[in-house]
Amino acid sequence: MKKKLNKSLSAIKRIEEAASHRRDVISLAQGIPSLKSHELIRKGVISSIKENKVDKYSPVSGIPELKNLIIEDLRTNDMDYSKDEVIVTTGSIEALSSIMLALLNKSDEVLVITPTYFGNYKRIIEMAGGSPVCVSLDEKSGWRLNNERLEEKITKKTRFILLCNPNNPTGTVFSEYDLKFIGETALKHDLLVVTDDVYRNLYFEQDAKVVSLCQYPKYRENVVRIVSLSKDFSLSGWRVGFLHGPQSLVDKVLTVHENLVNCTPVVSQYAALFALNNQQVILSENISEYNKRRSLMGWLLDEMRNHLNFIYPEGAYYFFPKIKNVDNSESFCVNLMKKAGLATVPGSDFGEGGEGHIRLCFGRPEKDIIEGMKRLSSYLERYN
Amino acid sequence: MKKKLNKSLSAIKRIEEAASHRRDVISLAQGIPSLKSHELIRKGVISSIKENKVDKYSPVSGIPELKNLIIEDLRTNDMDYSKDEVIVTTGSIEALSSIMLALLNKSDEVLVITPTYFGNYKRIIEMAGGSPVCVSLDEKSGWRLNNERLEEKITKKTRFILLCNPNNPTGTVFSEYDLKFIGETALKHDLLVVTDDVYRNLYFEQDAKVVSLCQYPKYRENVVRIVSLSKDFSLSGWRVGFLHGPQSLVDKVLTVHENLVNCTPVVSQYAALFALNNQQVILSENISEYNKRRSLMGWLLDEMRNHLNFIYPEGAYYFFPKIKNVDNSESFCVNLMKKAGLATVPGSDFGEGGEGHIRLCFGRPEKDIIEGMKRLSSYLERYN
Repeated sequence: MKKKLNKSLSAIKRIEEAASHRRDVISLAQGIPSLKSHELIRKGVISSIKENKVDKYSPVSGIPELKNLIIEDLRTNDMDYSKDEVIVTTGSIEALSSIMLALLNKSDEVLVITPTYFGNYKRIIEMAGGSPVCVSLDEKSGWRLNNERLEEKITKKTRFILLCNPNNPTGTVFSEYDLKFIGETALKHDLLVVTDDVYRNLYFEQDAKVVSLCQYPKYRENVVRIVSLSKDFSLSGWRVGFLHGPQSLVDKVLTVHENLVNCTPVVSQYAALFALNNQQVILSENISEYNKRRSLMGWLLDEMRNHLNFIYPEGAYYFFPKIKNVDNSESFCVNLMKKAGLATVPGSDFGEGGEGHIRLCFGRPEKDIIEGMKRLSSYLERYN
Repeated sequence: MKKKLNKSLSAIKRIEEAASHRRDVISLAQGIPSLKSHELIRKGVISSIKENKVDKYSPVSGIPELKNLIIEDLRTNDMDYSKDEVIVTTGSIEALSSIMLALLNKSDEVLVITPTYFGNYKRIIEMAGGSPVCVSLDEKSGWRLNNERLEEKITKKTRFILLCNPNNPTGTVFSEYDLKFIGETALKHDLLVVTDDVYRNLYFEQDAKVVSLCQYPKYRENVVRIVSLSKDFSLSGWRVGFLHGPQSLVDKVLTVHENLVNCTPVVSQYAALFALNNQQVILSENISEYNKRRSLMGWLLDEMRNHLNFIYPEGAYYFFPKIKNVDNSESFCVNLMKKAGLATVPGSDFGEGGEGHIRLCFGRPEKDIIEGMKRLSSYLERYN
């Protein structure tokens, strides 16, 4: 029986849910970490449940212990924020929706640096009455920011610059030079920057250091940052993250956050508390595992160089190869799923610059990576 | 040190957070159940965590086992919905925000039957670009619906009728006659009805039976219903509930639900699963406890009849007395907190018909009810 795809869902969810209905499909589509949540998190949460700490509403912006820990974590990373400038959110998506609904006016334009998590960003920007405008990264220079292109796209309606750092799906870790350019542009044109740092702890090159715009006091009043614990701590099902920014903006976001969820589920806030409290142990284990999988997928992709081009991602957990002779990535991905039983996400879903590519997640289990790459390779040999 | 009230928050949250900063204050303000979550829920959730069932995203609309249980529960209550017509939400607030953001157009009017949870409804309706219009219940007839008044408020811009059943704070359980009138009005004027049945299991009069508009197939296509597990199952901190309605509407709501939270935290979905699976045991315990507290608060309020008038609520867990000689309930509540150390919510926050009243929650512990009523009584004796 053919399963009807639900058009209400984003492309990534549609692919993932379609894949889940076929047993023979390997999915490297949605960015779901295959690792389990760490035992230290699970144990901590279980005690909190037993001690009846999680049954009642928390303050709207989050439980104080967690907020203190977040403030400390930010300080360690050279970011100075007070407790009124932090909100614990129900994942990064709720954070972005709260920001956009609170701060965007009808017809405002949002410059989105693409290819990125565009399908979902676009839906949220449009829900808040705004319009997304793509500014594409330079593929030839290894997905670096093209400063001129950014400036060219600014109009009187531009209100926000939205970037993901490290970037999904290109793996770009924005350089200090590029971040400062974004910061200066924001000051010059009176724009706000939203930096979605969901993959902040997932970076792999020795030289790569993830810097955040929030580290520069000069840009502080113009930047709101989003952090999630879904990927690095394998907590995607718990829906927990946070946002921080200057109080003048965060106050407005707090109103919407209360409207959307009242407060983030307290049990998930405790998961975040135990995650951050044990982050050194947990992250070093997780990142070394992802590093291995990155090498594995890269090595297997290398064998397909006559059919595709790619670079190793500096951060996040995706490869984003360009498939030769493909100008419709959506139909390529549909056929790949049908004929080879491999679910991937078409590059066209990531906005300008993404067409012709496909996204492969190496957050998935090693055996799925191996089998998935085998299927991709045979498919390319046969049909490409 | 005086704590500055955060204007970004709703009135109820402001009062509750202000009260939490003073040790000597008793709060009967926010509707927080004082009971703990049931052991059967806690045990079930803990196993699910240990079995690693909660770490990954669930399908956007919820885990299938929970949705099946919800469909069964609805069927037991004469409501027939398929799995594509149900969404598990991050509490009732996320459900309402998703509905309004999905279905309301700019400048649409929403008729809100008041006094009700108006402060928060208003914020959400306005966030979605609409305007709330109050239709007040008849205090003299024991807070019944005034049909003429409802019809009078309908304009070309009216899009929704929003009611809370049983109603917070009046305790009104809408009669079948009134519900049918609302249903007929919706059909006649092509309106949608949102029925917020958050207190569906909390009713106390032997004759009172909570009927839902969704039970009448005639009105089915025009009604979306919201249910929360926060109050009856004492799960407010877990943020879990659900919505259901005809697929044509629910498909649109699902898009926004994905934008807002991706999916409801899976750990909270498991809490809902174990709650519904054990609902007979849990609810009979909880409701008999609330019934005792209702009698206690009613009995203590009876002693103050020379200063206030009230009726016993049929449902929900609030008394909503009218205080004699008070025409500014907000300043009354501010003084009551300052001079008597008792936090309550001013009637003015509940929309038209609420001024002159205060809301007292009997979901709070017995000792707080006793001490709170003592403080109210002395205050009234001294200042009223």
